[in-house]
Amino acid sequence: MINDTVYLRKVFYYETDRMGIVHHSNYIRWMEEARLEHMRQNGVDYAEIEEAGILMPVTSCECEYKSSAKFGDTVEVTARLTAFNGVRAEYEYSIRLSGNERLLATGHSGHCFIDEVKRTPLNLKRRMPDMSAAITRLLPTEPA
Amino acid sequence: MINDTVYLRKVFYYETDRMGIVHHSNYIRWMEEARLEHMRQNGVDYAEIEEAGILMPVTSCECEYKSSAKFGDTVEVTARLTAFNGVRAEYEYSIRLSGNERLLATGHSGHCFIDEVKRTPLNLKRRMPDMSAAITRLLPTEPA
Amino acid sequence: MINDTVYLRKVFYYETDRMGIVHHSNYIRWMEEARLEHMRQNGVDYAEIEEAGILMPVTSCECEYKSSAKFGDTVEVTARLTAFNGVRAEYEYSIRLSGNERLLATGHSGHCFIDEVKRTPLNLKRRMPDMSAAITRLLPTEPA
Amino acid sequence: MINDTVYLRKVFYYETDRMGIVHHSNYIRWMEEARLEHMRQNGVDYAEIEEAGILMPVTSCECEYKSSAKFGDTVEVTARLTAFNGVRAEYEYSIRLSGNERLLATGHSGHCFIDEVKRTPLNLKRRMPDMSAAITRLLPTEPA
Repeated sequence: MINDTVYLRKVFYYETDRMGIVHHSNYIRWMEEARLEHMRQNGVDYAEIEEAGILMPVTSCECEYKSSAKFGDTVEVTARLTAFNGVRAEYEYSIRLSGNERLLATGHSGHCFIDEVKRTPLNLKRRMPDMSAAITRLLPTEPA
Repeated sequence: MINDTVYLRKVFYYETDRMGIVHHSNYIRWMEEARLEHMRQNGVDYAEIEEAGILMPVTSCECEYKSSAKFGDTVEVTARLTAFNGVRAEYEYSIRLSGNERLLATGHSGHCFIDEVKRTPLNLKRRMPDMSAAITRLLPTEPA
Repeated sequence: MINDTVYLRKVFYYETDRMGIVHHSNYIRWMEEARLEHMRQNGVDYAEIEEAGILMPVTSCECEYKSSAKFGDTVEVTARLTAFNGVRAEYEYSIRLSGNERLLATGHSGHCFIDEVKRTPLNLKRRMPDMSAAITRLLPTEPA
Repeated sequence: MINDTVYLRKVFYYETDRMGIVHHSNYIRWMEEARLEHMRQNGVDYAEIEEAGILMPVTSCECEYKSSAKFGDTVEVTARLTAFNGVRAEYEYSIRLSGNERLLATGHSGHCFIDEVKRTPLNLKRRMPDMSAAITRLLPTEPA
């Protein structure tokens, strides 16, 4: 398992705004795309989590913009799990132009797990122990 | 009951693209906003339809663009029910700048009704006769 | 050159709505993604057209929905140029689940070319003859 | 002039996702809507800023989600300018259901000003002194 997922993505025309650059809200969406790809690549299929009646809503998100992406660019979103305790999960992101070291943006998201029907928080360790163990194995054993 | 609903809506910055005008896909979304407002104003609450376990998906949509809207504009979307037989519904739309006769766009959408759980078509006349009658009363008695 | 471009695309979570399926407006966006990929694969780089001060706005779009895509699906959007005369272009689309013959949707879009500054129609044959010839070569010589 | 703008907004159907609630990325868009309404209500017309060749991109954004909005809700987004020095501006937001004290979310955004053509930072105090003074007057004289 590899915690750092590098997700490549062409910029879509409709993601730009009249400034001629990608609208900032789309970076939040790209982070979601990269996070779900990160889960998939590590055997943590989010569709499977939802089929088990569990949702993983976003409790916080944050993005710092350093430069801008435009139509024609391919962006590279790196997603990394930074915390998980069964009840909460945290991810970090960095966004670059493909093949370019310079950062476009960095970001963060926080998540919890809730029961789809009751809409109350739950502990993934109890509800899906195997899935939970798979997620835990992604965490660095030493502080990053 | 008034079949023609005039729905006013400011253009949002994030709806523009790098052409400096509203991206064409957003007109499809404005039509949905106007259609739901049309339903609400006529006592046909779509949230209530969904609470009854019924979905009303779009089976077709179409838009002709004659001019463009930009940030700072307020658009006026007129929605009108043109057909309804319990199984299918059709709406027509015209979009103008507020207070301006000239058309920005015209559009059309088609809809059916399905059971949320079974995902099979249903007849609203049988499942929600009062709602169905309220919708039917909106139709012109003579062909438009 | 190959007129039929098959464009593969994972469904993003944020493209779904509370019906649990992809919101219909996103099919219009997928058609744009496929059209731009079609242009790119045929040496017609849309970013290059815009750099020449030419925009290619959508004058009409249309979609017929036969079935629905959901999160976890990969869709296959086929784009084909069906008409081009220097002043107007038309494309047709079909959308399927990847590896599945059954149609999710079919669509159509119409386009013109305008001068970015003057915002008036132009003839691509005069302004970009090589680009125009490249587009023309994509058209079937016999009626499809 | 009133620094706190309360912006009312119905939730659109297409803003929900398959969790049945509004997708988190849309809160970032609502903040933009409220910020532009805040500017407009205080005589700071953003369209006018852009007509002067000045863009005001987002340099950071952040949102904490405490509860969720769903289709049928009307949300109330309060926007407040918290910092402005000609070069940078900062806004804070709180989001509630209309007529309900309980918070759905709180947020923050940071902005700079750039020259549309050169794409380099600029000082609004020098380029648009009246506009800059109007913005400055919105700030609390005592630290909030």
